[in-house]
Amino acid sequence: QDASKWGLNMAFLDKSKDFPVGQVCVNFMEGDFRDYRDVLEFGKDMDIVTIEIENVNTRALYELEKQGISVYPQASIVETIKNKGLQKDFYTRHDIPTCPYIKTNNKADVYALIETGKISYPFIQKKCEEGYDGRGVVAIMSQDEDHQIFEEPSIVENFVNIDMELSVIVGRNADGQCVTYPVSEMVFNKQGHLLDMLVCPARIGEKKALQARQLAEKVAERLDIVGLLAVEMFLTPDDRILVNEVAPRPHNSGHHTIEAFWVSQYEQLIRAITGLPLLQTDHFQPAVMINLLGERGFHGTPHYEGLDMILEVEGVFPHIYGKAVTKPLRKMGHVTVVRDKLSDAIDMAQKLKNHIKVKS
Amino acid sequence: QDASKWGLNMAFLDKSKDFPVGQVCVNFMEGDFRDYRDVLEFGKDMDIVTIEIENVNTRALYELEKQGISVYPQASIVETIKNKGLQKDFYTRHDIPTCPYIKTNNKADVYALIETGKISYPFIQKKCEEGYDGRGVVAIMSQDEDHQIFEEPSIVENFVNIDMELSVIVGRNADGQCVTYPVSEMVFNKQGHLLDMLVCPARIGEKKALQARQLAEKVAERLDIVGLLAVEMFLTPDDRILVNEVAPRPHNSGHHTIEAFWVSQYEQLIRAITGLPLLQTDHFQPAVMINLLGERGFHGTPHYEGLDMILEVEGVFPHIYGKAVTKPLRKMGHVTVVRDKLSDAIDMAQKLKNHIKVKS
Repeated sequence: QDASKWGLNMAFLDKSKDFPVGQVCVNFMEGDFRDYRDVLEFGKDMDIVTIEIENVNTRALYELEKQGISVYPQASIVETIKNKGLQKDFYTRHDIPTCPYIKTNNKADVYALIETGKISYPFIQKKCEEGYDGRGVVAIMSQDEDHQIFEEPSIVENFVNIDMELSVIVGRNADGQCVTYPVSEMVFNKQGHLLDMLVCPARIGEKKALQARQLAEKVAERLDIVGLLAVEMFLTPDDRILVNEVAPRPHNSGHHTIEAFWVSQYEQLIRAITGLPLLQTDHFQPAVMINLLGERGFHGTPHYEGLDMILEVEGVFPHIYGKAVTKPLRKMGHVTVVRDKLSDAIDMAQKLKNHIKVKS
Repeated sequence: QDASKWGLNMAFLDKSKDFPVGQVCVNFMEGDFRDYRDVLEFGKDMDIVTIEIENVNTRALYELEKQGISVYPQASIVETIKNKGLQKDFYTRHDIPTCPYIKTNNKADVYALIETGKISYPFIQKKCEEGYDGRGVVAIMSQDEDHQIFEEPSIVENFVNIDMELSVIVGRNADGQCVTYPVSEMVFNKQGHLLDMLVCPARIGEKKALQARQLAEKVAERLDIVGLLAVEMFLTPDDRILVNEVAPRPHNSGHHTIEAFWVSQYEQLIRAITGLPLLQTDHFQPAVMINLLGERGFHGTPHYEGLDMILEVEGVFPHIYGKAVTKPLRKMGHVTVVRDKLSDAIDMAQKLKNHIKVKS
């Protein structure tokens, strides 16, 4: 949609025309972005190819690069990032602070680590591949939960004390111009990995904010990425900032940029991959973003309860993704609240969160 | 595009898939909106039908209404507005201040008015039908220009002294809720009817601004319109505000609402016709909009000279409509400049205006 403002000729690949992108984009190819031939067939006549999720067939991206097509982010970066083990090794290699981790090939490896005391309860296990939105991640609190340990190649990490989870969106173009958005604060729900609320700017001091943005920029530069990079970080009680993980694409923690900034993450991505100058992000309004998740216990055609109230208020921006079916905790949309004062945005978002429910 | 944020199921009718809307909308029907059967065929399965230009076949709109489809703006309003004679008569009937006018059926009528002294040079003649963007309008400065007088049914008006041309966009839903945007000032070029620059808010006092918004609201209410109404007005040296003409649809003088307001004219239209609450327009940033017109002397595939500079500056928003061919003075796009201070926006817009050229 952002590209269409400029009359750019865009095409999209996804599994079904009924998926959200199929409803707003004219040049659409049905296919599986995990499939080598589909990605190659789709990309071979393009000038530039980019991604909105990292689980794309990397082999096909390499092949497209070989054919002289500009693939941004570059195939090797997608390959590194989509495997959590490779991603972690990259941080280690480049002196980027991250939580200590150990790589495991199977369940037996994990048990061995426990027995030898190299890892202790509670700990986190993350599958190297196919982790996304809290999937492929498990917290093992005690021996009673050992049955939940994954068999797949993984990384395991001891619990780290965290004061706050932060995110910085970075844009970077082929000239090496690099622009960061102000730090966002990700407030997670008690149960675990679901984002409760995204708050921008993060309620941290200026110095820490600058430090987080510089660290995010460093990751982008060391990756040599062209495109967008969302850098998720932990702020620890002893004031260290650790990189948790990155995503080389438009990110949930940047949705608020659509309304709160003069330049959205999507426009910044288009600028980055087409070689246009990136825009600074100095002008913005405080914003809070909440996800609209499918309510537990409901499965089927979505009904958005409480949407009416959300549509009455100035500076409240609902986005409904148009998915045909709601499932428990499925991301069905999001709402951004923009206010002159951050505390007002937080209050309003909390009110809306209690009010809107995606049922069926 | 605004409707797609909410997952609304939209469909569009225009002459060619190559037209701008065909490039961004999936449900597209090729057809002529001036044709009775095309409009009927297109509209018969819709819940709600709206327009983006008033030259739609009105008879078909009436028929759709008869079939129980919600046509907004209503067929009778489109019929009144698209004929300048009927539109003027409407103002007279409802005590809405407007420039004095006389209706004529043909050239001979105009000559008779001149001879009897009921009209005198210089005067303006506007064709009743098919006037749009300065087309169908002629200024007859002296007897030497009599050969330019139109044969078609028209209205003629003596020149009125004008200090400023103003525009107010009104949204109104079926419940009668009515919302106006702050007044915009339309700065025209010396030669005549081409908009040089749109400035919002208009550089007039608060009292006059309120008066203009109230007058615009009155027109919308008397029309009983559901949808959007752009009300173009003259501010005279003796401080009267006269309605010049109205358009029952998203309007060039509201393009800046996309970036400068929390709610764009397009979203407001969707709200109005779907029966949602309209949003207030209190939060906005000063903005200036310039049209990108095809340069004189160029005809063919457009090349946007100077676009690079426009893409470098934060708060400068180019919109390229994606038209396949540029012609002299054809609207090929627009640029909105948003700034904290209006004077800064004006300065920047003037700079851009001298810099960007649509050539071929």
